[in-house]
Amino acid sequence: MHNPQLNKHGELQHLLTIDGLPKAIVNHILDTASSFVSVSDREVKKVPLMRGKSVFNLFFENSTRTRTTFEIASKRLSADVINLNIAASSTSKGESLLDTIDNLAAMHADMFVVRHATSGAPFLIAKHLNDTKQHHVHVVNAGDGRHAHPTQGLLDMYTIRHYKKDFTNLTVAIVGDVLHSRVARSDIHALTTLGVPEVRVIGPRTLLPGGLDQMGVRVFNNMDEGLKGVDVIIMLRLQNERMSGALLPSAQEYFKSYGLTPERLALAKPDAIVMHPGPMNRGVEIDSAVADGPQAVILPQVTFGIAVRMAVMSIVAGNSGGV
Amino acid sequence: MHNPQLNKHGELQHLLTIDGLPKAIVNHILDTASSFVSVSDREVKKVPLMRGKSVFNLFFENSTRTRTTFEIASKRLSADVINLNIAASSTSKGESLLDTIDNLAAMHADMFVVRHATSGAPFLIAKHLNDTKQHHVHVVNAGDGRHAHPTQGLLDMYTIRHYKKDFTNLTVAIVGDVLHSRVARSDIHALTTLGVPEVRVIGPRTLLPGGLDQMGVRVFNNMDEGLKGVDVIIMLRLQNERMSGALLPSAQEYFKSYGLTPERLALAKPDAIVMHPGPMNRGVEIDSAVADGPQAVILPQVTFGIAVRMAVMSIVAGNSGGV
Amino acid sequence: MHNPQLNKHGELQHLLTIDGLPKAIVNHILDTASSFVSVSDREVKKVPLMRGKSVFNLFFENSTRTRTTFEIASKRLSADVINLNIAASSTSKGESLLDTIDNLAAMHADMFVVRHATSGAPFLIAKHLNDTKQHHVHVVNAGDGRHAHPTQGLLDMYTIRHYKKDFTNLTVAIVGDVLHSRVARSDIHALTTLGVPEVRVIGPRTLLPGGLDQMGVRVFNNMDEGLKGVDVIIMLRLQNERMSGALLPSAQEYFKSYGLTPERLALAKPDAIVMHPGPMNRGVEIDSAVADGPQAVILPQVTFGIAVRMAVMSIVAGNSGGV
Repeated sequence: MHNPQLNKHGELQHLLTIDGLPKAIVNHILDTASSFVSVSDREVKKVPLMRGKSVFNLFFENSTRTRTTFEIASKRLSADVINLNIAASSTSKGESLLDTIDNLAAMHADMFVVRHATSGAPFLIAKHLNDTKQHHVHVVNAGDGRHAHPTQGLLDMYTIRHYKKDFTNLTVAIVGDVLHSRVARSDIHALTTLGVPEVRVIGPRTLLPGGLDQMGVRVFNNMDEGLKGVDVIIMLRLQNERMSGALLPSAQEYFKSYGLTPERLALAKPDAIVMHPGPMNRGVEIDSAVADGPQAVILPQVTFGIAVRMAVMSIVAGNSGGV
Repeated sequence: MHNPQLNKHGELQHLLTIDGLPKAIVNHILDTASSFVSVSDREVKKVPLMRGKSVFNLFFENSTRTRTTFEIASKRLSADVINLNIAASSTSKGESLLDTIDNLAAMHADMFVVRHATSGAPFLIAKHLNDTKQHHVHVVNAGDGRHAHPTQGLLDMYTIRHYKKDFTNLTVAIVGDVLHSRVARSDIHALTTLGVPEVRVIGPRTLLPGGLDQMGVRVFNNMDEGLKGVDVIIMLRLQNERMSGALLPSAQEYFKSYGLTPERLALAKPDAIVMHPGPMNRGVEIDSAVADGPQAVILPQVTFGIAVRMAVMSIVAGNSGGV
Repeated sequence: MHNPQLNKHGELQHLLTIDGLPKAIVNHILDTASSFVSVSDREVKKVPLMRGKSVFNLFFENSTRTRTTFEIASKRLSADVINLNIAASSTSKGESLLDTIDNLAAMHADMFVVRHATSGAPFLIAKHLNDTKQHHVHVVNAGDGRHAHPTQGLLDMYTIRHYKKDFTNLTVAIVGDVLHSRVARSDIHALTTLGVPEVRVIGPRTLLPGGLDQMGVRVFNNMDEGLKGVDVIIMLRLQNERMSGALLPSAQEYFKSYGLTPERLALAKPDAIVMHPGPMNRGVEIDSAVADGPQAVILPQVTFGIAVRMAVMSIVAGNSGGV
């Protein structure tokens, strides 16, 4: 499918994936986010950039945490936010996804923030809006299936840039259940785009997808080896349903092989930072001593995430679609 | 029950039903809506008419779509909106409907938008507020049982007026499950009030209520005959639960007899418009070629629906109750 | 546990309980609420005191009514409100309560309104925020287990002061299921703090906790005796689950012994007021003739409750934490 996120002038009209996103656009998002970090610190945490705009949170898959970050970002941009739990709505009455989208667009929506269990759903929506010339509506992907979670990828980049300044001399390790992770996929694309020379992926064979070599990453099944000398460690969440599944013996066994302990962290560079998209499973993929330790930047990730979402929303809202 | 929607000066203080609503009030609503259609097109889609007012969406029956239209309408009028899913609330703790209403009114509510599975519930609420002199609260019926859905009826009239200008030379056909439809009932009252000379109802005997003749409509069981020469076709949604029920053989059979296909549409006037309250069952009551065709005005209905709801809300909020 | 609700200057930075709250602070809250009562009466019911602040309604236990009052209070203070139904959220993904709190605080929350089934949860949260120097976040207890419901206690005091002016010559009776009531506990502390000379508790032995004597209250198992000559009657709600439980024979029996009828009310002072936190069980703890009678001040309680919550929120938001 042609990537419909750029308009004919090459501007970002939807944010669907980091894959194929020009470096200049990524940097523009990070620079814009930088200006919003201070907004959240002010006494009055609002800017009028999207005043009177209608943002619809279309969560076909429940995610209170992600929905909350977009809701806050929208409100700090002064937009009106409508939360739709779509599972409980018209699609259950047999209406098709695209009929639902057309209906909401006809209410003069300005933006759909879309979370969907099916990979590609936000693409389908954006393509349909483009094809039917409903250019007033912008789509932001808030996570689709195993495919992409671009705002998480971007906030991870913002965090790395904040602490490490320069991407071009870094070694970054992504650890855990890469196979089922849309975060990992978005991070790998973003790190590559920004010129990180060495991206490592660490995990058990059963939780690593094929084709990682072609993405230009180094694969490690042994965590101690993979962590040696890295600047950044991105831990992934182990989904509950994997813990007692066929792919893994048990959560305890997993922690023994791939849990990030202070001892293992000591193998990385002394100033390495530890990231996690949350919510954490303490004692499964990460030891509390690390999660609460001085190298963890997990809560700053959350703070930066609001600013990055404000940046994405205000940028796409400002670029006319389809032209 | 005395219709409590007009105050002593004959002004609209609640909107409960179109039945008995003076033509002048209907026209005033449509004229006011007209001024709001452009608001939704603006860069900043807000007017301060209800700033600081508290609108409660009281949905005793779930309807994401209708709730969303009222929520958007409220926010574009700058009101504060509180969504209450009442099924999950105090009524489940054994509190009576009117105690719940009194409680919310005591919070200085300005408006209740009420959806209820029981016909007459919004009347009961409005009457209680009038009787207890809680005149600061206005009620808007967002659909009660099989009885009425007045804002849908009004947006249908707005749509017809937009495309046909004059009501007094029209033939309008309403097609489908009229028996269970509050939309059909509201439309028939509105069309009659506005002077439409011929209103037709088309459907199988099992889905048509008694007493249609007394309402001044012509009844057709054969769709081809009923569609001949009409200016406006209002398709009704076939509820899922009817599709395999005792009243109908099957959805396929229904489509064969009452589905709107391009061939059938050709029996109407060449410039006939096709309306549907949504959500559509494509291939059941309507063919996709018609739903997406040039005569369909189904998405404009949605757009006008926001403006009509803004009109209704701002009008009733401006008329003091009970005096 | 040290009470963490006051900062080092003795100012209210969180509202967790009325127990131990200085009389001056209680009076300051009531005086501030008094100025907000008129706000809800205005055409535009908003003041800009918390404009741009982010208030999170963290309801770990469902309570539509209480959440609604805080949502309205927040919006009338011009704050942005985020409603989180936490049961459906990350805690169900195995994240700990305090990780959830840290995450939300990292989004630059200004206030958590917390409802939790576990006694002490809001304390735990406030203590954690203090300990980790997240002083920008304020906690308001919206009801925790059987422990406290301080804003209900304060609105009860506001109501009594409104009708009786002076606390120091009153006899107040609290009637019903005191054992399971956080409202009763908060009321007893507040009444004592404000100098009410006689607080009575009336109920069956099975629904009265031990230790009431030490709290300085007089205990009555006979309702007629307990009501004699009182100025204020606070009825408690009988929870549905008690009605057919081991502690009580039946709802009918309960009404016979402890239901407030007009006859029983006549035993109190002629100008006695009747209060109830809602939702009422008519015919169980209270007769409709009393609930709707001239001595009931149950709906004014609701109105005052919005003003009291606005007062509490604006006061704690204005006091810097931890310093």
